[in-house]
Amino acid sequence: MSKSKKRRPTNSIEPAAGNGLLDRRALLGRGAALAGAMGVGTFGTATGAAAEPLANDPWSVAPGVAIPAYGVPSRFEDKTVRTLTNPKGDWRTSGARTPHHLLNGTITPNGLHMVVARGGFPDIDPDKHKLLIHGRVKQPMTFTLEALHRYPMVSRVSFVECGGNGAPLWSKEPIQANVQALYGLVSCAEWTGVRLSTLLEEVGIDPQASWLVAESADSVSMHRSIPVSKAMDDAMIALYQNGERVNPSQGYPMRLLLPGYEGNMNVKWLRRIKVVDGPVMAQNESVAYTILMENGKAWRFFYPQEVKSFITHPSPGMAMKGPGFYEISGLTWSGNGRISKVEVSADGGNSWALAALQTPVLSKALTRFRMPWNWDGTPAVLLSRATDEAGNVQPSRAAFMAQRGEPKITPAVVAFPMEHCNLVSSWGVSAKGEVTNVYV
Amino acid sequence: MSKSKKRRPTNSIEPAAGNGLLDRRALLGRGAALAGAMGVGTFGTATGAAAEPLANDPWSVAPGVAIPAYGVPSRFEDKTVRTLTNPKGDWRTSGARTPHHLLNGTITPNGLHMVVARGGFPDIDPDKHKLLIHGRVKQPMTFTLEALHRYPMVSRVSFVECGGNGAPLWSKEPIQANVQALYGLVSCAEWTGVRLSTLLEEVGIDPQASWLVAESADSVSMHRSIPVSKAMDDAMIALYQNGERVNPSQGYPMRLLLPGYEGNMNVKWLRRIKVVDGPVMAQNESVAYTILMENGKAWRFFYPQEVKSFITHPSPGMAMKGPGFYEISGLTWSGNGRISKVEVSADGGNSWALAALQTPVLSKALTRFRMPWNWDGTPAVLLSRATDEAGNVQPSRAAFMAQRGEPKITPAVVAFPMEHCNLVSSWGVSAKGEVTNVYV
Repeated sequence: MSKSKKRRPTNSIEPAAGNGLLDRRALLGRGAALAGAMGVGTFGTATGAAAEPLANDPWSVAPGVAIPAYGVPSRFEDKTVRTLTNPKGDWRTSGARTPHHLLNGTITPNGLHMVVARGGFPDIDPDKHKLLIHGRVKQPMTFTLEALHRYPMVSRVSFVECGGNGAPLWSKEPIQANVQALYGLVSCAEWTGVRLSTLLEEVGIDPQASWLVAESADSVSMHRSIPVSKAMDDAMIALYQNGERVNPSQGYPMRLLLPGYEGNMNVKWLRRIKVVDGPVMAQNESVAYTILMENGKAWRFFYPQEVKSFITHPSPGMAMKGPGFYEISGLTWSGNGRISKVEVSADGGNSWALAALQTPVLSKALTRFRMPWNWDGTPAVLLSRATDEAGNVQPSRAAFMAQRGEPKITPAVVAFPMEHCNLVSSWGVSAKGEVTNVYV
Repeated sequence: MSKSKKRRPTNSIEPAAGNGLLDRRALLGRGAALAGAMGVGTFGTATGAAAEPLANDPWSVAPGVAIPAYGVPSRFEDKTVRTLTNPKGDWRTSGARTPHHLLNGTITPNGLHMVVARGGFPDIDPDKHKLLIHGRVKQPMTFTLEALHRYPMVSRVSFVECGGNGAPLWSKEPIQANVQALYGLVSCAEWTGVRLSTLLEEVGIDPQASWLVAESADSVSMHRSIPVSKAMDDAMIALYQNGERVNPSQGYPMRLLLPGYEGNMNVKWLRRIKVVDGPVMAQNESVAYTILMENGKAWRFFYPQEVKSFITHPSPGMAMKGPGFYEISGLTWSGNGRISKVEVSADGGNSWALAALQTPVLSKALTRFRMPWNWDGTPAVLLSRATDEAGNVQPSRAAFMAQRGEPKITPAVVAFPMEHCNLVSSWGVSAKGEVTNVYV
């Protein structure tokens, strides 16, 4: 403990919980609230005094590179990519995971948005693609992309999360992998398009109809049953993703967006919507995306992704460089609305403190939380626990396991055994600063 | 007028101003508010009844494309690029303009963010780059990228706009060009980094110091004087842009972000900050970015970009396909805070109606406005006029010209003659649906 003493903030910064967590208000407003009380160099993380002037680096004395028509990340960021489960595009499901340990903020750039695709992405000519809405409607209609552009549009920031995101946390022993592997199947973008309700009213939906079937133009005809109530609430035919047309992997030229609902209901490459009387029991709502409970019953047609959070910085695979100040930071979201609070613990769950939530906190969108931490160099266990505005709280591992049981790998559910895992995860920090996935 | 009659909404949708503008509330909440009152197919823009089933397109019956590690837009979007003033990277200033006529929402994807660079972009190795803060401080310090990652971070959505954006609107006769050419030097992103105030307090800034000089690592050593008051308010050393590290054209690995201030003060490839007693009278605050007034005096050190708006849909170069419903949509922003309202006119400014503002409306960020319009097929002139929370209103062309005078192309100011032009612009719609830049 003694070696950390000179880096410890003065008493004017209140500790907020055990093992070095500081009051989150130290992060808000002007830095003066924190630094003013701490004095010069108190963060102790800079490299100290430097001679002037800095030596010129080679790029400062050479002509620059021409600005391209479409910019790409620096060549030094070539590791900031998605991990792929099917890089050659074999005839099976492909997963692409977002590298959250290398990102910050809440928006996911389009090139790094998570993907689950059953048959790669179809290379659609937007001028030839049409959306058909039919079934229990007064007037079946097809909509070209140009036609959709005549309708009123709406924009919203929304996460999209695979039902299986976080499933590795359910395993009996902690899997040693980074957050890209553990939590990389959630991403967030600003989506713009036409409300599905606008189109359903345009075709004259039967007021008694209760379900839709949404179908993709991809080679596996991905389809899901959608309740009309969700369609009339906040569903969107998304045409734009972070300003530009949706990415090919995200459904170009149009996808269904069901804010907060499990990823594969947000049907990409949307081609057909049929208004019907009941769910069609598609493969991805019967064989898969049905959860067998401990008591032998099953959850079916459960849609919103539960309240969830995880710490991105520090996180497994990272190495901390000695004691002193760090910002603990992570992502939180809920399919049921806004996040109301995130609590963080640095002592394995013995004590908790409120994290700062980056504003604006938007409904069904990723929210960044931040927590100031003065690490004393001794082993620590970091946890985050989110609560949403509906009052849902992330369960502890013990509570989650009591309800959901051991992971079920049976022939019937082997492909998608472990959806909707939202337990509180725990990162261990060793005295050497190594960060690992641990169970508390 | 008669041919438009069958497409006109029923009387239950209130007209909001002359020439077909409808009440903006028709766009909000569920579509039922509008469509329910209008009946089946009332928008009149769909292609009508269609046979079932849709014929299979070739991409629906072929294996898909492999998901890439870093996604790029569809090959069919190859025209959604920035226009370049210096595509070969000659030894002069380069401009790259955002194609706002092809985008929607408010976030600009990183590949399409506007750029002004005096000497291309430096190809910086982030592990070798350092930021020095020196001058009137207790302890000069250098910060590596790794060191900066130990500090508390903050995220915010902010526009960045060149002081010269919109300058073509100042010309004596209307220039026929699209909004990319007229308004493409403003973009918007979620930026994440360390507050500059945190670092200034870390080095112990002299409380009496009033100015900083921020300097780039590029080959032209771009530099500007910055008031300490802005640095201590909301300035940021930005490390992330829309989640990933800032784009090379945007200052990789770090840039200064001064929310709301004219673009070139947001120094990219930030290398050195010196705390000083007064401005250094850099080229870009003396020869350029100084505005000569009609009375022979000049504006110097004016920083916030004024309240502004423009209509992206429809906009010059577009062709409207016959009368009926359209959504008028555009972008608005102010360097002085949030937008409080946008008014739209379809009759050349004789009558105005309030547009809907897409929420959340964020301070110093692009905001999308939307206005429902039933075009009757006769000539129309569309305008938008924004007001910010500080009460600033976009001036009419006449009011702007009375204050600022004719464009000044003199030897001294030829390079940057027309900064901070925020007059209300006007798009004409001909009976044929052709949209042009007009003066009213």
